Amino acid sequence: MAFSHKILTKLEHIVGKSNCLHQKEDILCYAYDTTPDLYYPEAVVFPQNSQQVASVLTLASQFGVSVTPRGAGSGMTGGSVPVKGGIVMAMTRLNRILAIDRDNLVAICEPGVVTGQFQKAVEAQGLFYPPDPSSADFSTLGGNAAECAGGPRAVKYGVTRDYILGLEVVLPTGEIIKTGVQTAKGVVGYDLTRLIVGSEGTLGVITRLILRLLPLPEMVQTMTVIYDKMETAAETVSEIIRQGIIPRSVEYMDNASIRCAEEYSKAGLPTDADAILIIEVDGTENEVSHAVERITSVCSKAGAREIKHAENREEAEILWKARKSVSPALFKYGPDKINEDIVVPRSRIPDMVRKIKALSRETGLTMVSFGHAGDGNIHVNIMLDKKDPVLLQKANQAVADVFDYTLELGGTISGEHGVGITKSAYMTKEISAESVALMRRIKAAFDPAKILNPGKMMV
Amino acid sequence: MAFSHKILTKLEHIVGKSNCLHQKEDILCYAYDTTPDLYYPEAVVFPQNSQQVASVLTLASQFGVSVTPRGAGSGMTGGSVPVKGGIVMAMTRLNRILAIDRDNLVAICEPGVVTGQFQKAVEAQGLFYPPDPSSADFSTLGGNAAECAGGPRAVKYGVTRDYILGLEVVLPTGEIIKTGVQTAKGVVGYDLTRLIVGSEGTLGVITRLILRLLPLPEMVQTMTVIYDKMETAAETVSEIIRQGIIPRSVEYMDNASIRCAEEYSKAGLPTDADAILIIEVDGTENEVSHAVERITSVCSKAGAREIKHAENREEAEILWKARKSVSPALFKYGPDKINEDIVVPRSRIPDMVRKIKALSRETGLTMVSFGHAGDGNIHVNIMLDKKDPVLLQKANQAVADVFDYTLELGGTISGEHGVGITKSAYMTKEISAESVALMRRIKAAFDPAKILNPGKMMV
Repeated sequence: MAFSHKILTKLEHIVGKSNCLHQKEDILCYAYDTTPDLYYPEAVVFPQNSQQVASVLTLASQFGVSVTPRGAGSGMTGGSVPVKGGIVMAMTRLNRILAIDRDNLVAICEPGVVTGQFQKAVEAQGLFYPPDPSSADFSTLGGNAAECAGGPRAVKYGVTRDYILGLEVVLPTGEIIKTGVQTAKGVVGYDLTRLIVGSEGTLGVITRLILRLLPLPEMVQTMTVIYDKMETAAETVSEIIRQGIIPRSVEYMDNASIRCAEEYSKAGLPTDADAILIIEVDGTENEVSHAVERITSVCSKAGAREIKHAENREEAEILWKARKSVSPALFKYGPDKINEDIVVPRSRIPDMVRKIKALSRETGLTMVSFGHAGDGNIHVNIMLDKKDPVLLQKANQAVADVFDYTLELGGTISGEHGVGITKSAYMTKEISAESVALMRRIKAAFDPAKILNPGKMMV
Repeated sequence: MAFSHKILTKLEHIVGKSNCLHQKEDILCYAYDTTPDLYYPEAVVFPQNSQQVASVLTLASQFGVSVTPRGAGSGMTGGSVPVKGGIVMAMTRLNRILAIDRDNLVAICEPGVVTGQFQKAVEAQGLFYPPDPSSADFSTLGGNAAECAGGPRAVKYGVTRDYILGLEVVLPTGEIIKTGVQTAKGVVGYDLTRLIVGSEGTLGVITRLILRLLPLPEMVQTMTVIYDKMETAAETVSEIIRQGIIPRSVEYMDNASIRCAEEYSKAGLPTDADAILIIEVDGTENEVSHAVERITSVCSKAGAREIKHAENREEAEILWKARKSVSPALFKYGPDKINEDIVVPRSRIPDMVRKIKALSRETGLTMVSFGHAGDGNIHVNIMLDKKDPVLLQKANQAVADVFDYTLELGGTISGEHGVGITKSAYMTKEISAESVALMRRIKAAFDPAKILNPGKMMV
């Protein structure tokens, strides 16, 4: 049904006029994420509490209007973009940290809390929230949960899913439900918590999160390992794990990524290196020095050119800032980016790195790789001008080739960015028709009127 | 529809005569788990592959016959008991370890593999599968996954859910699907893996598991901490965590548990102690000695009477054997056991321990508590003769009181045993009517004919 003045008036009544936008210049800011296309909503609402979320969803169900939940809009696959118009439900004004419980290593937050601010708040109490997507400085806990955000620390600590004990969720049909527990264990009923985590805002709107925390590690050490040959870097990753060492991060950057990050950040990265690994270990002082010693030995034996240790926290932070700048900085290589986040079994990274190199050579496309090598998660970026139809066609073919090879190696086409709209066409490469049909039946069990975040993930 | 000779013939045709039982004396062994009541199936099948599982389920759907999947039948809440008769699908002959991949820390197994045997197989390769339910010596990986089994190591390492990357599952409608990934990350589509884990065999039959492994810790140290007052023991648990130490296990046993385990196992437990904690730490040698030192200091300050360190692995194993014997050994206190596995936030364990003591005093019932205090998971056992209606009524009221208080403290009524049939009547104490309705819709999305493990979990 078309969006009407009547619906707008009702929305303003529910959330208040100051929490409802509908002028074109205002809603523009809610028409995009990091994917290139704009999709305008008809209105943007900022709910102040769960009851308002429920009222908006009930109204939308009644009138058949689409609702797209949104955190900071920093997603990589269009998850928060209102492809069918309707209402954007921006959760950014529900942004309180409600409790940090040191005794039970649990926190309770609203979904609009910025992840980086939450990390700092728990650190101030000697606690640790490990999930650390590159967007942490601006993305939100609710968005991270909806997408099951990953990041560099997953190799040791897992992903967002592993730190969510329970949720408050509003169903598309308007019911407010609590899922999960606030304890370390709990098995009563189906695991709705983890079904909703990673469902990309298609099953319900998260209005509260119960998060698991850890004690803050005593010490962190960051090292840069420099290689003259990218294959050698790729091979080292497996060798470290084979030795029984689990660093908290093993990040990979190829030469193009290094040059890009260095130009942007002036962090002193070796622009002549074919590849680097940024390896970070944490634990007690003893544990850290033991691990650093063993990693140094593995990397030297494997043929690293040089191994540098960050002298202090500031140096490590400069390095991480450089690493996190790669994705936005890549635009120096072209006006458009096709950005994938495949995962392969760790031992197959060298094969994948060789494949990407070969594809780049064959097609003449600029292909840049970096990412979380410790868990096999490689961000493959193709930089191009999409206005050139020949290049675009080649790039799309290269993406399809990368996906096919990923699956051949036993991998997955998305480690942390999700499917959204950009990977929707490729989803059946990985997921069978029977599984997609089941996912659609699950979607219908939550959202019979199909109003919540339509047009995403094939559901 | 009643079970007919025709169906039996078809079953024998699918799995072969030697993999199909139907004589009363044969099927008796498949009529029970650790709960007291017997429910006879009409036939027991032992599928040899996924295709046979699919054929049996398709047949059952067609004729409206119930199918109850079963591992070792060691469950605590009736999950594998065929309350509506029909077919028991015993997965015990699908019991091969198909791969242990050291480079990628992944294993692939069939569901009938005994958990303890799998633990030993990976340990032989320097690897570690942390989930360790007390039943590990006889329960299966498939059963552990269906129930999301926990155990003593969850405080540091999490539960079965955290070690399952992907599954092969046969849906009640006969489709064979693959869920999840064999990599550290993966977010394509809904998280069917974790929806099926803990669903107690009501959504699909697990025919293959992709499991996550860790490197085997260099060293393990087990300590027994002896207390004259159970409240002091309970308070110490929180204090250890508050100091930022995460042992891999913190087990609690009250005086009745200690006496029981000692009589059964002759492990040298202090039968005069009001309570003990069995604390286990692991890691590098340095890390372990550091943790032991700090825990010793915390326990001494908190008022422990004595702290004993296991001198070697054999001593530690004797201790664990004693701890794991508590549940079966309890029958010395009465012919019947009501066995619950509540979880409360760790800091509220002292409150719960006091509540149980008070309830026991008020009712005159023998109430024994032990369990995984590190994650707040307490096994409360009421020992009685159920033929005495007055006692039984008192015991049921005490269970309801324990559950109410658990929820008041922010806990859950089951940490690892599941709902099955024994907790079904209590499920709505914790889960709202809206959530149960949603779970029923999810069940219908998987199993429209309601043939798979009916009569469990309110779905």
